[in-house]
Formats: sequence, C-alpha cells, structure tokens
Amino acid sequence: MEEIMSQFLAENMNVTEEEAAFIAECMPVRTYPKGTVLLRAGQVATECYMNFKGLVRRYYLVDGEERTTAFYTENQAVASLLSYNTKTPADHYLECVEETTLAVLTYEKELLMFQRYPEFERMCRVGVEVQYGQHQEMMARYMTSSPEERYLHLLETSPDLLNRVPQYHLASYLGIKPESLSRIRKRVMQKQ
Amino acid sequence: MEEIMSQFLAENMNVTEEEAAFIAECMPVRTYPKGTVLLRAGQVATECYMNFKGLVRRYYLVDGEERTTAFYTENQAVASLLSYNTKTPADHYLECVEETTLAVLTYEKELLMFQRYPEFERMCRVGVEVQYGQHQEMMARYMTSSPEERYLHLLETSPDLLNRVPQYHLASYLGIKPESLSRIRKRVMQKQ
Repeated sequence: MEEIMSQFLAENMNVTEEEAAFIAECMPVRTYPKGTVLLRAGQVATECYMNFKGLVRRYYLVDGEERTTAFYTENQAVASLLSYNTKTPADHYLECVEETTLAVLTYEKELLMFQRYPEFERMCRVGVEVQYGQHQEMMARYMTSSPEERYLHLLETSPDLLNRVPQYHLASYLGIKPESLSRIRKRVMQKQ
Repeated sequence: MEEIMSQFLAENMNVTEEEAAFIAECMPVRTYPKGTVLLRAGQVATECYMNFKGLVRRYYLVDGEERTTAFYTENQAVASLLSYNTKTPADHYLECVEETTLAVLTYEKELLMFQRYPEFERMCRVGVEVQYGQHQEMMARYMTSSPEERYLHLLETSPDLLNRVPQYHLASYLGIKPESLSRIRKRVMQKQ
C-alpha cells in the first residue's frame, strides 16, 4: 500500500526518495468499504485524505434530506478544512460512495512532516492556495450557471462521474430534483 | 497609512514589532477611488489584497451581463488565487464598489517575507486553510439554500452589506432577478 503513496509523491512532488519514504510513513494508505462514513456532522474532523481510488461525497442533512455538495475522485484531496483546522464540530458528512483507498493524514503527523521538511510546508501552502483558487472558480461557475449548464460541464470534465454516482445524489449536487435531471439528460442526448 | 497595517498585525498576528514593521513595508497600504477595477478578465493577477476599509466585488461577464459572485468587506482578504498562483489569465473582474483602502501584496514581496520570517509562512498556510474551509461552507450553504434563505443569512451575518451594495448587484449575487429580490425584501419586512 505504501508503494502507491511513494509513487504518487515521486510523480507529483519535488521530493527526494528519503523524504517520500518519511511522508508515506506519516500518511498510511487504507481501503474503506463502500458506505463507510469518514466524518459525521457533530464530530471534529481529525483526518485529511488523499484519494487514490474510489469516490467520496460530502453531504449536508437539510430538513432530513441528504444534500450533496461535493464529490472527490482519484487524485483529489478530501478535507473538511474548517473543522480540521479550528477543531470545531463539522456540520456535514463525508461518505465513501464506492470502496475507496485513501492516504490518511492527522494534524500531529502533519506538524511532524513540516518540522522535518520545512520545504514540504511551502509545497503544501502553494498547493492549498491553488486548490482554494479552483474552489473559488467552481463556486463562481455554480452561481453563474443553470442546472443544465452544470450538467454539461460535468459531462465535459468528469464524464465517468455521471455513471459512478446514483442519480439522486447527482441531482442534489446539481441543485435539482431527480425528475429534472432525467429531463436534462434526455434533452442533451437528443441534441447529441 | 502604514500604521493601519502595523496595528492590524499587532492585533491579529503573533509577530514582534520588528516583524510587523517589515511586513508592513512589504504590503503598502493604498486607497482606490470608487469604481477602480483592480483586475480585469484576461489579465494575470499579480497582487493580493487585505481590505481595511471599503468594499470590493468579484464579478463575471456572462452573455454581456455582470454576475457578482463575491463581496469582500473590512478585514477580508481579496485574492484571485488561481490566477495569482498559476500565473494564468483571470476569467473575472475585481472592482471597488466604494472608495477602498487595501494593503497590497505581490508575489515577490510574499516570498521575501517568508524567506525572512519562515514562521509567518506557517501562519499564512493555516490562515489560508481556514479561509478555504470557510469557502467550502459558504459554497455548501449556497448550494443547499433558496434565494430567500440566502437573503436572510446575509441579513443576519452582514446586515450593513445590504445597504452598501446596489440592489442589482445584490440580486445577481443571490442568484435572482432584481424584481425577485424586491419581493423577498417585502415579504421579510412584513414578517418582522
């Protein structure tokens, strides 16, 4: 399992073999069965994850209904950053939609890594800023587009997601009812 | 002007007087007239800002129409992080809605600060992670609420914003037409 992590680090980060080994040691790789709840509303997030294989979704319970606000697929970070950094209870859930293999980081191991390799902290700072920037764009795109435009964007950028996710989760993510998603799908298929 | 910055640092950051003076030197404070465009779509963002007084909005041009996706008020960071960090052209605008006083940071000065005070980089990393976490929550709230709920949330958390922002910008930010915002306002006032 550690090999996945070392390979990922070697391919994506400017680190030596020794550094990669230490980082891999700090971030054990675990496989969670489908349906595993990684974080519940009310709990403090004590872990961050790097998704190597599988699918995690973030959802909120609104009036007893699950409302999905994010999907995290391969090579994406999974983190409830506010809860994790401020040690306050989360207001949402993280759930494995499929069997999912994640590298797991805790607050203590994170500090340990940064103490030993300060240059890794810079890489992480810049990485987080870029991801935050992508999140700013993602929110702007959501705010300025219609459900159909959101669906077309997913179809273009993450076509596999559309088949991996149950339709009612997808509809909730697009901000519509499952019936509306069916209509959009039909319309888009007719056009193609 | 530098006094505003030093005072802010002393109140909000765990830095010595000497460090505060150096940071203030790296982030000159400037006042921009109302209507100033800090960043245009197509330009690479070369500056980040800290808002001391005034109001900045972020907007996208969608089919010739301005669509506001964020407002930045006092004590908030203003940054187009993806463009700034990846040096790629921005797809949106940053505009001063009022006369606005900002501390201005460039990429070069940022690196200079972190070289001189590595512990400041950690503060910034954690600060950015917390802000990113707040942004995750903000997007989730937007996705899971109706325009009226979004309006009520603003009324509760940033009541002054409702009077500082032209109604058509506010409507666009809430994802509705100005007429719908008028109806929501009336309904809310009747209830109160």
